[in-house]
Amino acid sequence: MFAQTPKPPYWAVIFTSQRSDVDADYARVADQMVELAARQPGFLGVESVRGADGFGITVSYWASEAAIAAWKAEGRHRLAQGAGYARWYTALFTRVACVTRDHAWTRG
Amino acid sequence: MFAQTPKPPYWAVIFTSQRSDVDADYARVADQMVELAARQPGFLGVESVRGADGFGITVSYWASEAAIAAWKAEGRHRLAQGAGYARWYTALFTRVACVTRDHAWTRG
Repeated sequence: MFAQTPKPPYWAVIFTSQRSDVDADYARVADQMVELAARQPGFLGVESVRGADGFGITVSYWASEAAIAAWKAEGRHRLAQGAGYARWYTALFTRVACVTRDHAWTRG
Repeated sequence: MFAQTPKPPYWAVIFTSQRSDVDADYARVADQMVELAARQPGFLGVESVRGADGFGITVSYWASEAAIAAWKAEGRHRLAQGAGYARWYTALFTRVACVTRDHAWTRG
């Protein structure tokens, strides 16, 4: 699903990850984190896809770098991050970026 | 697959799209575009996932905004963009962003 973001500039966190074969609690906590992120100040939206091979890309959008820092430090999110390292992922890459231009198009 | 990008800053094009039900030539041209992008000056890497529902995220990484502009204008890429609007996508969102920080982790 597309995120409906405001006019740039705004910020993006590009989170790419490879899932492990450990499924316990993953889907439940992943859903919780999306709900929790959506209640954070400065949250603008999220787009997420995971392929059948377990490689996934999640891009969350934020109003400021401060909003990203606050989300990174949020208590339940920190617990989930720990479980991610310990159990759910075999590798991950997080990139913080400032969106300077965008273009949206929908058919018809 | 993870892109092995250099130390920031570098640029990202976050391309999110919803596929139509038209498959003719799509996979072939999509593969060609990845190969062609990889030969462009300033190309740093690409990460791409599409879900079973047809929603996909492709993030390509570039050394500069000028490299992104040159890739946008490349002739065969422009033809593919046209076919994308005409046939392969029902909606898309392109965002250009400057990556200012990143963090990679691999288990073990």
